[in-house]
Amino acid sequence: MNQYQMRLEKLFDWMAQESITLAVFEDTEGRRDRTIRHLTGQPGDALLLLSLDRKTVLVPWDINMAKVYAHADMIIPYSEFERLPCKAIAVVAEMLGIPAGSKIEIPPVTPYPLFLNYVGKLTDFDILCRERGLSAEARKIRAVKDDEEIKIYRKAAAVTNALIGLLEKNVRSGKIKTEADAALLIEVEARRHGCEGTGFETLAAGPGRSFGIHAHPAWTDSPFAGPGLSILDFGVRLAGYTTDVTLTFVREASPRQEKIAGLVEKAAKLAFSMAGNGTAARSIALAVEELFARAKKRMPHALGHGIGLEEHEYPAINSRSDNEWKIEPGMVFTLEPGLYDPLHGGCRLENDILMTETGPELLTEARTIRL
Amino acid sequence: MNQYQMRLEKLFDWMAQESITLAVFEDTEGRRDRTIRHLTGQPGDALLLLSLDRKTVLVPWDINMAKVYAHADMIIPYSEFERLPCKAIAVVAEMLGIPAGSKIEIPPVTPYPLFLNYVGKLTDFDILCRERGLSAEARKIRAVKDDEEIKIYRKAAAVTNALIGLLEKNVRSGKIKTEADAALLIEVEARRHGCEGTGFETLAAGPGRSFGIHAHPAWTDSPFAGPGLSILDFGVRLAGYTTDVTLTFVREASPRQEKIAGLVEKAAKLAFSMAGNGTAARSIALAVEELFARAKKRMPHALGHGIGLEEHEYPAINSRSDNEWKIEPGMVFTLEPGLYDPLHGGCRLENDILMTETGPELLTEARTIRL
Repeated sequence: MNQYQMRLEKLFDWMAQESITLAVFEDTEGRRDRTIRHLTGQPGDALLLLSLDRKTVLVPWDINMAKVYAHADMIIPYSEFERLPCKAIAVVAEMLGIPAGSKIEIPPVTPYPLFLNYVGKLTDFDILCRERGLSAEARKIRAVKDDEEIKIYRKAAAVTNALIGLLEKNVRSGKIKTEADAALLIEVEARRHGCEGTGFETLAAGPGRSFGIHAHPAWTDSPFAGPGLSILDFGVRLAGYTTDVTLTFVREASPRQEKIAGLVEKAAKLAFSMAGNGTAARSIALAVEELFARAKKRMPHALGHGIGLEEHEYPAINSRSDNEWKIEPGMVFTLEPGLYDPLHGGCRLENDILMTETGPELLTEARTIRL
Repeated sequence: MNQYQMRLEKLFDWMAQESITLAVFEDTEGRRDRTIRHLTGQPGDALLLLSLDRKTVLVPWDINMAKVYAHADMIIPYSEFERLPCKAIAVVAEMLGIPAGSKIEIPPVTPYPLFLNYVGKLTDFDILCRERGLSAEARKIRAVKDDEEIKIYRKAAAVTNALIGLLEKNVRSGKIKTEADAALLIEVEARRHGCEGTGFETLAAGPGRSFGIHAHPAWTDSPFAGPGLSILDFGVRLAGYTTDVTLTFVREASPRQEKIAGLVEKAAKLAFSMAGNGTAARSIALAVEELFARAKKRMPHALGHGIGLEEHEYPAINSRSDNEWKIEPGMVFTLEPGLYDPLHGGCRLENDILMTETGPELLTEARTIRL
């Protein structure tokens, strides 16, 4: 059994338990869902239909791409269905002999007007669209990495750490002078190490722009790592999986800047020390927010998040009252405390952690670098 | 009146006509909507609420960023509402004194389970979530560029054309040898010309990879513009607006490769010649598909699309039976016929067109380059 079949088995079992006869996943512009890559290898732009009798039907935009990458029992180009999801589902349901009255589960991100369209057109079936359905189940599975995925993460972390070392060296030597110098080095070196590229648009913000959580634009020709606080947030994507780290470079810090940097380092240590097996993710986020509140500071984003085929996956690591995630072995996630001052600039320290049976393992070596 | 106020006026008028008391836009991960940038200047991650009495309330994740970029009557950080959209809407509705029983319109991309959540929590109001509501109205307005936007597009096209020239020159001289050489040149030169960066991930696919519509990975260290067909698809983003062009480099083409390239050029000419004022976009796409069908070929994607703050905007330019878009003055859109052969590689020719009162104007100079 290959890794795709192993992942599918869990979902087929769940479908049987819930009497779902046909389930639909959709990876399309505006509604990206890397679960299709997780289950078939197809890198993007497709519908995936799973049937209770354990058949997989992939409906890709790009049939040539699917022939290279995808594992599925049947592959039918989306153009056969005018690229209309309702039509694809209706035809595939008929092909597979799905009986009238069956439950068909569609993605929980289906917009309400499209949901009405499904219900109106697929009148023979019972259409389910729910937060805690098969898609959530697939995301729970994705939140706990299997051996294949952990192997990839160890390699991706090694590349990331090599890059962190090189970035520090080149900033210290003066070879990196601008945001662009840093961002382009990452683009080139990630691929030189066998990665698909970066996991997301690199954010390189020199002292003049580090006040923003996500610098806009992402990187420019302006100076990097000059006096003040400079943020560099990047990840490398290896075989689909992205790392996600943030370094802050500190040069000739004012007392306020040093205070921000010190608090963020303290928060990162606290968060890591709390990340035990079975810990409620929310409690870690609350503890960090409490630490910042005591210093009259406020973090304007979540403490962390799972990583994987998407840049933001489960577990959720934030203080929202609806966050019920617990840290479990196999989870790979970031912790990224950050503080941002409109005048003095921002500081974020983000590392990737693998939870093992014996505790958290720091995969990456991001740090606050004082120049 | 600045450009933001001018754009808002049209939406406020529409709200009055439809008796919408409060309207919500959302730009968030998984549900990007650049309408918020169009209406306020805020580059991303925010809720925007418009009230019938012509107030704008922006709820950004990043308050520091909003202070720099956003134009709005009120700006309240999203963290005040635990980053929960229902909570934000409830509190803002109360602040603005929205009477019970009022119509509140939420985005048409709202997932069905979230829609139920809104309806369950905002019981005092009539919640509207519809395909052809205010959001569609905003996208219709965005489909026709105003003077400010056309000015930006002329500049962005000039940068794009300078890049096309440089790419051709450097491929011919042998300075560009790999996909990475081409992609990195675009990253650097776009910014050197004052752009925010690229409009989307550059796709550079040498002869071994051009069979895919969207090469995966987007670009690598492999050879570019060697014998066969190589595709280069890129855009530059200036002040938020992206161009989108595709060049194909042809070297030592086999008869089949030359046939593909020739057909695509013929299709591009046909499409441009048909793009008149008032023309149904669908009819152009059908004509190109007919041309390809006569040669026993099939294009696996849409013929084109509007461009703007997003890479794919309205008008839709495809042959889907539900496509009712007509070409109008002020529209900026791409035409991008393409054919892809799993063995011989692919060819796409994409240019950006501005429709003027007197006919289509070719903004960009992408071409099939025979080496």
